[in-house]
Amino acid sequence: MIAKTPAPPYYAVIFSALQTDDVEGYGEMAQAMVALAFQQPGFLGVEHARDGLGITISYWADEASIANWKANTDHQLAQKLGREKWYSAMAIRVAKVERAYGFAVDPAAPKA
Amino acid sequence: MIAKTPAPPYYAVIFSALQTDDVEGYGEMAQAMVALAFQQPGFLGVEHARDGLGITISYWADEASIANWKANTDHQLAQKLGREKWYSAMAIRVAKVERAYGFAVDPAAPKA
Repeated sequence: MIAKTPAPPYYAVIFSALQTDDVEGYGEMAQAMVALAFQQPGFLGVEHARDGLGITISYWADEASIANWKANTDHQLAQKLGREKWYSAMAIRVAKVERAYGFAVDPAAPKA
Repeated sequence: MIAKTPAPPYYAVIFSALQTDDVEGYGEMAQAMVALAFQQPGFLGVEHARDGLGITISYWADEASIANWKANTDHQLAQKLGREKWYSAMAIRVAKVERAYGFAVDPAAPKA
């Protein structure tokens, strides 16, 4: 649920979107894209939540990994459908994670 | 819903958390903290979603603004209660937004 990322620095791609009323095909595509992301070089993890606003944060080792994922052919089709069909508004922010902290991110570990 | 942030660079604080079963006082505190964040110097906006995992991303002009907010007395009480009572797991990542794009983030603007 909470991504188990390595020590910084690494990158976060923050994807925030509002959906249209047309969700046909969206669920399948979203699932397929997450599965595909996991196979990409440099992929470190993903976090997602939605209630009205949908937020998906994917974590990547470096800028090259992000560029490679953005250029993936199947992902490009998903991006096109997102722009044209599924999303009424969308923002993507690419950010370099400089520091991180927390507790119990690994569910097997005791609460600090 | 989607934060209307200025051109990069700026900072994102990505807060990801799983809740305990004890939500007493949580809703009021969360609302109060958002209202208080809006009053802080350097605050640029906030995005939130929850379904199981809760994700709150606040955007800030610079590191000094983030440090100031973290040290805020009322916010420190909220942080303490979060650690001790409301959250079973939590991760905070501080990241520098290097580039951003999207469409229709301003609901008054036409879809690009």
